[in-house]
Amino acid sequence: MPTFMDVHRNMTGITAEQLKAAHQADLDIESAERVHFEHAWADPASGSVFCLSNGPSREAVQRVHEQAGHPADEIYEVGFEI
Amino acid sequence: MPTFMDVHRNMTGITAEQLKAAHQADLDIESAERVHFEHAWADPASGSVFCLSNGPSREAVQRVHEQAGHPADEIYEVGFEI
Repeated sequence: MPTFMDVHRNMTGITAEQLKAAHQADLDIESAERVHFEHAWADPASGSVFCLSNGPSREAVQRVHEQAGHPADEIYEVGFEI
Repeated sequence: MPTFMDVHRNMTGITAEQLKAAHQADLDIESAERVHFEHAWADPASGSVFCLSNGPSREAVQRVHEQAGHPADEIYEVGFEI
């Protein structure tokens, strides 16, 4: 399964609790799209959130985020990592 | 130590070997700045590379990347993660 890094913008002031709730909302529905969200990092000062996932396609990742109420602004397929 | 996610742009076509060499160049000099680069992900299609690190400051992270010859275009302090 490909790996994706997606970015959410305009989340200035996001708290740890809000990140946890948003991530859980993804986890609750991700299996329908065969996506798994592995990790998320938040910078509340700039309002940026980065999510690492794997799944069949960029579109599948976005469908989970959309259905959870927080569509990503950017989605990158990260073909390799180190 | 704070955690940082930085982003390099305009690296279209980067290969796994090039990512490995760039990451190693950071590792070779990072201790002088008390920075550690933990992980990197590359999307050669869009030319985006994401690096996860920890260190004393955003400026310290950038100094390592600059001295290794690949300054970051964006650096985010990710205050929390899940």
